[in-house]
Amino acid sequence: VILEWFIVLWISVHHVSARVPVSAAKLKARRQRWNVRASEMSKNTLNPIRAIVDGMKLTPNPEKPMIALSIGDPTVFGNLPTDDSVLQAMKDAIDSHKFNGYAPSVGYLQSREAVANFYSQAGAPLEAKDVILTSGCSQAIELAISALCNPGDNILVPCPGFSLYKTLAVSVGVQVKFYNLLPEKSWEVDLQHLESLIDDRTTCLIVNNPSNPCGSVFTKEHLRNILAVDLRFASRHCIPILADEIYGDMVFPSCEFHSLANLSSDVPILSCGGLAKRWLVPGWRMGWILIHDRNNIFGSEIREALVKLSQRILGACTVVQGALESILNNTQAEFYQSTIGFLKSNSEICFAELSTVPGLNPVMPSGAMYLMVGIEMEHFPEFQNDVDFTERLVTEQSVFCLPATAFEYPNFFRIVVTVPEEMMVEACGRIREFCARHYRPLSQESNDLDQ
Amino acid sequence: VILEWFIVLWISVHHVSARVPVSAAKLKARRQRWNVRASEMSKNTLNPIRAIVDGMKLTPNPEKPMIALSIGDPTVFGNLPTDDSVLQAMKDAIDSHKFNGYAPSVGYLQSREAVANFYSQAGAPLEAKDVILTSGCSQAIELAISALCNPGDNILVPCPGFSLYKTLAVSVGVQVKFYNLLPEKSWEVDLQHLESLIDDRTTCLIVNNPSNPCGSVFTKEHLRNILAVDLRFASRHCIPILADEIYGDMVFPSCEFHSLANLSSDVPILSCGGLAKRWLVPGWRMGWILIHDRNNIFGSEIREALVKLSQRILGACTVVQGALESILNNTQAEFYQSTIGFLKSNSEICFAELSTVPGLNPVMPSGAMYLMVGIEMEHFPEFQNDVDFTERLVTEQSVFCLPATAFEYPNFFRIVVTVPEEMMVEACGRIREFCARHYRPLSQESNDLDQ
Ligand SMILES: Cc1ncc(COP(=O)(O)O)c(C=O)c1O
Ligand SMILES: Cc1ncc(COP(=O)(O)O)c(C=O)c1O
Repeated sequence: VILEWFIVLWISVHHVSARVPVSAAKLKARRQRWNVRASEMSKNTLNPIRAIVDGMKLTPNPEKPMIALSIGDPTVFGNLPTDDSVLQAMKDAIDSHKFNGYAPSVGYLQSREAVANFYSQAGAPLEAKDVILTSGCSQAIELAISALCNPGDNILVPCPGFSLYKTLAVSVGVQVKFYNLLPEKSWEVDLQHLESLIDDRTTCLIVNNPSNPCGSVFTKEHLRNILAVDLRFASRHCIPILADEIYGDMVFPSCEFHSLANLSSDVPILSCGGLAKRWLVPGWRMGWILIHDRNNIFGSEIREALVKLSQRILGACTVVQGALESILNNTQAEFYQSTIGFLKSNSEICFAELSTVPGLNPVMPSGAMYLMVGIEMEHFPEFQNDVDFTERLVTEQSVFCLPATAFEYPNFFRIVVTVPEEMMVEACGRIREFCARHYRPLSQESNDLDQ
Repeated sequence: VILEWFIVLWISVHHVSARVPVSAAKLKARRQRWNVRASEMSKNTLNPIRAIVDGMKLTPNPEKPMIALSIGDPTVFGNLPTDDSVLQAMKDAIDSHKFNGYAPSVGYLQSREAVANFYSQAGAPLEAKDVILTSGCSQAIELAISALCNPGDNILVPCPGFSLYKTLAVSVGVQVKFYNLLPEKSWEVDLQHLESLIDDRTTCLIVNNPSNPCGSVFTKEHLRNILAVDLRFASRHCIPILADEIYGDMVFPSCEFHSLANLSSDVPILSCGGLAKRWLVPGWRMGWILIHDRNNIFGSEIREALVKLSQRILGACTVVQGALESILNNTQAEFYQSTIGFLKSNSEICFAELSTVPGLNPVMPSGAMYLMVGIEMEHFPEFQNDVDFTERLVTEQSVFCLPATAFEYPNFFRIVVTVPEEMMVEACGRIREFCARHYRPLSQESNDLDQ
């Protein structure tokens, strides 16, 4: 039988049906017996960044070395290493021989206690039981969405915003509604638009502050207004918030980071974070959910849901868990400050350069590691959209910025400000040259000139 | 408004409805506005081991120190440390400063190449593109099931078997059908039973070899027979296999491990494995899927599905990924041999002891780290089932074994053979004492005696 099968398969692979000693119908029946299809879920797992970038023709100009301002990984250029104390904490954890076995699915008690102490605030106290350690902030977001939402529900997601929210939600049949951020108001939430989107099936509001891709940091007042909208305007029930604060505390000295939970007396919040950005070790996959319940609205039900979901594949690597207490408690303030100082200075250079480029409208960030640049498309008639624009920027100038269509926000592009300063300067010069070459005054203006 | 809300919530929490300046109906309407429910998926994420163990009254006898033969973590007693070269590989990875950033979602090319080389066989060649690194073997299984199955499909799962298969499947709406393993045939698959379960919606057959909880290792012939069933008897289409080989190569010297893929010329196989067991570092969460396609049946579709799913939360910690090549290539044969030697010797002690205990039927394992013991329940009329039996074993003798009901297989219990030898000897002695106390000859026999 195995031999017979081998022949049939060999035939179906090589299409030599003429010599086949079986009827066509029989062959068809047999062929059907192997019919391995990918699941709907995998087909619905869409990665907009990949979809867009893979569709672009990214052939750099051979005369200019490539500069990628597109990669949200602060470690790629080697100019932003993590602190030595962070690496030492890992080696100590290894040498202790204590962190090789299974941890509880929510993480070691001691590591959760360390996170709770580090993030406790007067208005948002935390204990170990309020902390769930996860495999990166990505898994924190996955667990939070999976705990709160059923297929057919919808969640409110910032636009522009980090694409993973949509990827995770859509793959489990949860609908995504985008609420607008307003570039002219430093990317604050359009509260009226937000309100208008809430319906009976809205089960989660995602607030990302500081923001990827905007680099914006919300004021205390604005955060309070978001909480108020959530409380006042929900049609049938209020909506718990998933606060993605992976860039928490990564704000320029001129402004302050407020965690949403510390301002919320009524709205329960799942705050997601991790080591990836502030400690510059995104590959280590250490994230967490901080459960900030209010008035027992989450109660034991949501806590238990999160615990159960954490048991599916378990969470973070135990060595990193073992190092966590030391990482949080022994990293010196200077390390954080020097990272922030660098990001601020690079942002200022980039902003100053690009604000004087006709046709571009950069928005100065206040934190995180990104800067968004608006493109006055009407001045670049050669290009259909931001994807076109950034594709040609690669072809001509070997500079790659992510088109903001990847964040559901056309006619902008995102610059990652973690690259070495000289690269940033060079890249901005090339962007200027590119724009100068393709900028066209509006016909209105040219008419004026003609007269 | 916030103040008003505060009052309403305060009221609803404290139930002081008498003093409320709002009508009951209004209050009810407002209360309804907070209605945060856990998702169906979280409710359907069932952990049979937790469900059973949490329901047991596990109060040890204060006069005897507790011995847990229940924990599938070889590191807990400190007698089975990982190899120094494995720890050194981790420290080297940290010192290299090369493994802190994001890796590709499927893992570093170099690490996948190392896994491919380590597991390539003549009948089952592997390249880097056939390897996906995951956060533990658990995530490998999750990705494989999620890639192959839709809600409403069913998968075939061994009974007794590792409970995670059911947990993961049921939570995504996939039905589980259990095929029997036969204790009297060293836990071989009941092939007729397996055949009888296959239907149009069967999308995956899970084969776990060596087995948790049985410690059994299938012969080459038996594996070939499983492959043949898969090919011959599927009603409409053949079924890809998920081979859970996390205990691969962990077999006693007297027998041989055969990976299923090396024997399969026609059936495509996703082989799941990881560092957890053989390298004794389960907490590090390093797993993998080896894609063994045959005749292009998986084709690009299943590969792409797995890649897409890997992008949801990314996979293994980059430090462990960075150490992987060295771990696989530099761990000496003595390390593996000494682990196996210990497991074999402990299994033999346990088996020899318990085979002479009236009422117990231990099944000698050939690999992995487990031994199953049948309970002749008719001889223990005081106990309703294996859960009862093992609960009382704790109360009286402070020995905890997992009742095999946790593996859907009543009237057995599982012993983990990784505990230090003196503990194993002591535990077996106590089990003997316990059984001697509760054993009752069958009434038939007692009648015989009476006559
Ligand atoms: C806003 C936001 N949230 C979450 C993440 C994911 O973090 P992690 O790498 O810890 O999964 C990122 C990564 O870029 C991010 O930008
Ligand atoms: C049969 C089997 N498969 C998979 C796993 C999970 O392995 P990991 O810890 O790498 O997720 C286990 C763990 O006990 C197991 O026994």
